[in-house]
Amino acid sequence: MQNNLSKELLANLRDWIEEGKDTSIREVLTELHPADIAELINELRREEAVYLYRILDEEQAAEVMLELDEGVREKLLSSLTSREIAEELIENIDSDDAADILQDLPEQKLEEVMALLGDEEQASDIIDLMTYEEGTAGALMGKELVKVNQNWTVAQAIREMRRQGEDMDHVYSIYVVDDRDALLGTLSMKNVIFASASMRTTIRELFREGKVRTVHVNTPAEEVARIMKKYDLVALPVVDDRGMLLGRITIDDIVDVMQEEADKDYQLASGISEDVEYGDSILTLTRARLPWLLIGMAGGMCSAYFIGVFDIETYPQMAIFMPLIAATGGNVGVQSAALVVKALANQSALDETLWQKLGKEFGVGLLNATVCSVIIMIASQLFHFELALGITAAVALFSVILFASISGTWIPLTLNRFGIDPALATGPFITTTNDIIGLIIYFSVGHYFLQRMGDITLSLF
Amino acid sequence: MQNNLSKELLANLRDWIEEGKDTSIREVLTELHPADIAELINELRREEAVYLYRILDEEQAAEVMLELDEGVREKLLSSLTSREIAEELIENIDSDDAADILQDLPEQKLEEVMALLGDEEQASDIIDLMTYEEGTAGALMGKELVKVNQNWTVAQAIREMRRQGEDMDHVYSIYVVDDRDALLGTLSMKNVIFASASMRTTIRELFREGKVRTVHVNTPAEEVARIMKKYDLVALPVVDDRGMLLGRITIDDIVDVMQEEADKDYQLASGISEDVEYGDSILTLTRARLPWLLIGMAGGMCSAYFIGVFDIETYPQMAIFMPLIAATGGNVGVQSAALVVKALANQSALDETLWQKLGKEFGVGLLNATVCSVIIMIASQLFHFELALGITAAVALFSVILFASISGTWIPLTLNRFGIDPALATGPFITTTNDIIGLIIYFSVGHYFLQRMGDITLSLF
Repeated sequence: MQNNLSKELLANLRDWIEEGKDTSIREVLTELHPADIAELINELRREEAVYLYRILDEEQAAEVMLELDEGVREKLLSSLTSREIAEELIENIDSDDAADILQDLPEQKLEEVMALLGDEEQASDIIDLMTYEEGTAGALMGKELVKVNQNWTVAQAIREMRRQGEDMDHVYSIYVVDDRDALLGTLSMKNVIFASASMRTTIRELFREGKVRTVHVNTPAEEVARIMKKYDLVALPVVDDRGMLLGRITIDDIVDVMQEEADKDYQLASGISEDVEYGDSILTLTRARLPWLLIGMAGGMCSAYFIGVFDIETYPQMAIFMPLIAATGGNVGVQSAALVVKALANQSALDETLWQKLGKEFGVGLLNATVCSVIIMIASQLFHFELALGITAAVALFSVILFASISGTWIPLTLNRFGIDPALATGPFITTTNDIIGLIIYFSVGHYFLQRMGDITLSLF
Repeated sequence: MQNNLSKELLANLRDWIEEGKDTSIREVLTELHPADIAELINELRREEAVYLYRILDEEQAAEVMLELDEGVREKLLSSLTSREIAEELIENIDSDDAADILQDLPEQKLEEVMALLGDEEQASDIIDLMTYEEGTAGALMGKELVKVNQNWTVAQAIREMRRQGEDMDHVYSIYVVDDRDALLGTLSMKNVIFASASMRTTIRELFREGKVRTVHVNTPAEEVARIMKKYDLVALPVVDDRGMLLGRITIDDIVDVMQEEADKDYQLASGISEDVEYGDSILTLTRARLPWLLIGMAGGMCSAYFIGVFDIETYPQMAIFMPLIAATGGNVGVQSAALVVKALANQSALDETLWQKLGKEFGVGLLNATVCSVIIMIASQLFHFELALGITAAVALFSVILFASISGTWIPLTLNRFGIDPALATGPFITTTNDIIGLIIYFSVGHYFLQRMGDITLSLF
């Protein structure tokens, strides 16, 4: 939707809501896609949003609800009665979406809504879906699918498919099962439409035998995303321990998982708690950001302590290269950690052992360290700093880069091993650690060289 | 594929290649998905890769080629003759994939391959696709689609669809066109299969009239991804200026675009040039990382210069809070920039004007700055630092956080306005700038307070 259009439209809608021009509102909204209507509602005040929502026809309203921002959706839901939720909303959406929405209701209201659901099959599907842990294939999957028994004829199957597929937006695959509901294989629409078979052929003769790619209901969402991306799948059946078909995950759910994953990594890397965005309130934004700043501050305090210990007043010139050492250490650490995080996400380069990884990173670190040290040495001479300081900076920089390369590789791998999100290591966390350790290295080296070389330098110049 | 399995298998394949056990190799490979075979080939030496590739049957080989890492693919292609590429590879893949692969061939070889292509329609499709600029809908789209004329009967259409869809993996939508090939609407497989219409109904009567969502062939890939995500589309038709149907973009192409986008932002934020990954050589990795370190070093040098100018030797105690000031400034700047980058990518909060954005960021900055300044003030008293230094740190930190909030918002917005990727602002670039300006603020404040308050402090303690 055009940006200007939406701004003007929003203003119009507000006026119409105030004036109660329901017909004008309805006229405009029927032309729009639910995702566009949701975008408009996200911008409205609560009473306006509720008013507008009630003008929509049932089916449109249900689809709009799915597209709303989570915060707006919760507010809107709390303004709807249990009956409205059960009879108008839930009846019009897929079981997996329904489970997502109902999950956020207060327990009392949830029970009322469930009691009011007319379709018992749907109700039991929803209850079933709500038992799966978030972030697993079970929580992602939908129950809506088209399945046919291998013993049916094509004519029988088409009749069944027509019935089962009636309410579905897309039918990606047709799942072939045996009498116990165990998944045997898949048929595509194309196979059925294009099969020059007679209507009396059985499905068994039509479908391709062989391994079907499935995931277990407890598979983590990231793993599901990886499989669907790798094998270019648009739908993936979900099975239980015994191979029974439970549901299917479609590519659009995976697109959302991928987006969330990428956003999460990106926000962790930039030191923001997971789930804020630009539109949130100042307080929410501050709450997401302040803790990370405090971590950085704590690191800064430690640095302050060490600088005190190392007695900066005796060698005040040491201050000159402090920012350079700290910044470079931080940058190297983040680079190393980011590469590891990406490799873990893509499961690439996993054949390399820990030692191979560290060895390679050591090689890269060695190259970077050499180039940077030589540059700092030359630059410090060009700036006419004392020789001992130049040597200190060069030696310290060399050590800091090597150290940061290794720790930047090791820390995310270790976090990952303990089940913690390795992307944590790319944020202020690792930068702060490297800052402190970098300064300790710098001051240790400085003490050594400045003490020993002070006299020599003085006699040279 | 299991990690251990692939390691063992790789070792076996290497042995078999050396011993020429082609039958064993073929036996194992026919069981595997092309994506898995590609993963194995990515790990092989060049001669081994070529040997293994030639063992694969034509169709399998073509699919494997599409899944290979770009570097490996280029090497493998340079080992194939023009005839092999034309007759075995290109004939077995979709026109959009073919265009992607041929794009990377040397000009001479490209001409030879094109001359050898048997299927003239495919050849002209490929040439057509190669003219579209990279990163546009035209470069993303495939020519393979199923389209039917509105005047055909269902029987005629099914015959045509069968012919057109024969070589396609998925048929997402059936496009309905008029005699001039202008896109009128879509039909789903479901519509056709489930329509209780007679075989003599015309398509015109079956398909839903109304707006079809399309993109123009020059639409940027990011915009295409945004549309398909927003409206949950699995396929999106591409049209020219006159509304003629040129091709279609499928969701799996968009998944790749999204992945690339996310990776790019993430790598820019962590200071790595775009296209490296963990498996690359030490030299490649260093080349992608060193430039960013040098930018950081240049910033460090500027800091060194300013620290010299501000005469650290007179106030050596100033060194104590340097790391804290620099780190916090950097962290705040990156947080602000990351939020802007995300908002720009999602096109969210675009209704806010620049001033609204800056105002909001100023509010968040004010809150963060107040909390952090108070903490540093208290901490510096607990550590028994002199009062003037504590005040200096608190005032400087306050100013630095506010400054970094504003610059962190303004810089990516400005980069974006000039057509530069705003994600640049989340990397070492903004951290370095904030480091330097933070220190300048710190030293300016320090000069003022330490000079005026030195005597007072001494008389207090």
